[in-house]
Amino acid sequence: MDDPLPGYVGEARRILEEAGVSVGDRIRIIRGDRVFEGILMPREKLYPRPIIVVKLDNGYNIGIRVTDKTRIEKIGKLVKPSPLIPPETRRRENYPHVIIASTGGTIASRVDYETGAVKPALTSRDLAALVPEVFDIADIDTSIIFNIFSENLEPKHWEQIVEKTREFIEKGYDGVILTHGTDTMHYTAAALSFALRNLPVPVVLVGSQRSSDRPSSDAAFNLISAVLVAAEAPFSEVVVVMHGETGDSYALAHRGVKVRKMHTSRRDAFQSINDIPLARIYPYEKKIVLLREDYNRRNKKRRLVVENGFDPKVALVKFYPSITSEIIDFYVDKGYHGIVLEGTGLGHFPERLVESIRRAVEEGVIVVMTSQCLFGRINMHVYSTGRKYLEAGVIPGEDMLPEVAYVKLSWILARTRNPDEVKRLFQTNIAGEINPRHNVHIYPRWYHGE
Amino acid sequence: MDDPLPGYVGEARRILEEAGVSVGDRIRIIRGDRVFEGILMPREKLYPRPIIVVKLDNGYNIGIRVTDKTRIEKIGKLVKPSPLIPPETRRRENYPHVIIASTGGTIASRVDYETGAVKPALTSRDLAALVPEVFDIADIDTSIIFNIFSENLEPKHWEQIVEKTREFIEKGYDGVILTHGTDTMHYTAAALSFALRNLPVPVVLVGSQRSSDRPSSDAAFNLISAVLVAAEAPFSEVVVVMHGETGDSYALAHRGVKVRKMHTSRRDAFQSINDIPLARIYPYEKKIVLLREDYNRRNKKRRLVVENGFDPKVALVKFYPSITSEIIDFYVDKGYHGIVLEGTGLGHFPERLVESIRRAVEEGVIVVMTSQCLFGRINMHVYSTGRKYLEAGVIPGEDMLPEVAYVKLSWILARTRNPDEVKRLFQTNIAGEINPRHNVHIYPRWYHGE
Repeated sequence: MDDPLPGYVGEARRILEEAGVSVGDRIRIIRGDRVFEGILMPREKLYPRPIIVVKLDNGYNIGIRVTDKTRIEKIGKLVKPSPLIPPETRRRENYPHVIIASTGGTIASRVDYETGAVKPALTSRDLAALVPEVFDIADIDTSIIFNIFSENLEPKHWEQIVEKTREFIEKGYDGVILTHGTDTMHYTAAALSFALRNLPVPVVLVGSQRSSDRPSSDAAFNLISAVLVAAEAPFSEVVVVMHGETGDSYALAHRGVKVRKMHTSRRDAFQSINDIPLARIYPYEKKIVLLREDYNRRNKKRRLVVENGFDPKVALVKFYPSITSEIIDFYVDKGYHGIVLEGTGLGHFPERLVESIRRAVEEGVIVVMTSQCLFGRINMHVYSTGRKYLEAGVIPGEDMLPEVAYVKLSWILARTRNPDEVKRLFQTNIAGEINPRHNVHIYPRWYHGE
Repeated sequence: MDDPLPGYVGEARRILEEAGVSVGDRIRIIRGDRVFEGILMPREKLYPRPIIVVKLDNGYNIGIRVTDKTRIEKIGKLVKPSPLIPPETRRRENYPHVIIASTGGTIASRVDYETGAVKPALTSRDLAALVPEVFDIADIDTSIIFNIFSENLEPKHWEQIVEKTREFIEKGYDGVILTHGTDTMHYTAAALSFALRNLPVPVVLVGSQRSSDRPSSDAAFNLISAVLVAAEAPFSEVVVVMHGETGDSYALAHRGVKVRKMHTSRRDAFQSINDIPLARIYPYEKKIVLLREDYNRRNKKRRLVVENGFDPKVALVKFYPSITSEIIDFYVDKGYHGIVLEGTGLGHFPERLVESIRRAVEEGVIVVMTSQCLFGRINMHVYSTGRKYLEAGVIPGEDMLPEVAYVKLSWILARTRNPDEVKRLFQTNIAGEINPRHNVHIYPRWYHGE
């Protein structure tokens, strides 16, 4: 940071320069009868409006508009982030030891000053420096696995993350945090859930819906919650930790095989489907409220089981009314090993595609059925169409999300290609991806005007 | 019905025969201190348990288990259904005139006694006879358009339904009801919404999640609600009318372009996405509670606009992590005219597919972007990946559901193939499919253990 006021232009920059403050200083902003105190944050150049971004003591960033009447006072010196990170040689006694490893995504991104778009840039070290609260909870190391927007991640990247996570766990960390782009976080969470089992400590995926240098970022809230889970949660599973509602009250820890990004932009985009989250997390109160008892318990003596490897030759095919059998033939002819159908309702595809599916199965391609409804369970016995697909050899996907069924099939096909064995494994509940009993609560309540 | 007790076997049959009753009789069942009164209904053979199915006066079917202490009394004669249907020559004054046209699906199906599975069978005439309450609301004609499970419907079938609906409206009906399989009801609803505009009267799609001869069927409840909307609602739009919650309190009327089947089996599977339903419908109280004011008002003098025709050469391609550009090339090489991408988050696809998309656009294929999140809006300006796809010529799909974007593109491409004109039409709000403002209520509330 050569510029002491990165991102500030115009009136906002003028008033900050006048007050002699730099990014990182603790400042007081007085505007009429309102007073704000906090750390001056860097600003992105997207918005030319004169806004000063301050990190408040509750850990949250706000943008304050500069008016004629705004005064600024410096009340503390620039806090260099580096001393905040305890070097590995200076461990504090009785503090859990957590690692934050970044894979890219918005939580580790900042605005690209040239294009105005958001690009991955911050390392988890930078990020930890921006969220010093995490050091109240644990000693923290950071690592960069890679820096890739999550829409570009492929099964080979899951394998790298699995391998790195195994290393972290074997090094004896009390919890592993993986920062990840939100777009495909649920795919990676499912992949880790199948590949890393009997976990001694939690593996936490966390991201943010707004980049960490934006005033409205959810990065700090989510990261503190993730550190709390990694350091203290009684469950050692692969979980996604993200905002639970739009306010700043709690985050949720979702089981990695039962969660999905359900909104393009809301902070509470991640929600459990056909399941209830493991816990609510209150990051400021440092409190974890468990919502269930059926989890793998944290136990550092537990022997981690790693079964890494994913078959990329698996396709996810969503039904649409003009779909033809050509698309099934295409995948068979291209040598794919598995096809996940995202059918309608209880698990249907048009009858006109049955013969192409039968051919696929006969040629050794594993075909499974899921539903584009997302909620509920497949039942291919009720209607004649479903029965025809069953008879053609399609394996019903229970209450698995299409995305999870896709990851599971990719994982199974890297272990075995024997159809009977694939079928057996696919219908076995390996990581909680099959919820045998749905209570009425797990379907959300829609607004109907009451 | 040669057998007076179709579907009854064993103990249940014995006790019914002893009481000298037939299906259609009004009976009283006394079991301990509980008394049930209603019409004896036919029974499917799926379940051998001794259960007697009775249609209660609230219009709902229940199954009552026969025990040693069960007594049955006949309190009324068999009611032949046919006289309940007022012949077209005997119109009642001041009664709205509604038509129920069937296209197939569970609401017009019964259990196949040979295979045990549900097959389409009942005509809307049969169905109306099973739900006599509808004649308290309107004079009703029935018609069969075709009898096809909805997963088998293609764009050509939408065209037939549009044409038939136009005929019904031109004949002067006060409302048109289309019974339809639930699996793809939302696709057909969207298709009708684009093809039939400036409607003088409502067009109501209705279905059921359980077949109408099952004790737990939602067919009667939904059908009475649909007739109420067709006969009396102040809005004349294409709507889906289905159960609003699991109980029997209200149904919902959803705008045809903003609704989706969200559960494989629940009665309240249909929910508005990125929008609020038009109304709650209370079928037993015969009450419609409007939830909004921005609708096309019922006015029989309005001149219906019909623009029929759908292009089947449109594909819906859902992102998955191992997706390759081959699938895009496949559709381009097969001569497809449009591709709807169901991307991640704000509207992303892997960067490695950008060049194949650019080629598709250069060859005249229209490519649009939607999100597998379902909730929220596309914004391809925020991240560099989105900007690359925009630059390659991809049209962002606003807050449209992937399914609706698919139907809309199919409808547009049957009108014009000029890329600029397609783009203009796609980004124009034609039937309410783009909701420019989302209030906080439209994201459902998930259960988080409170």
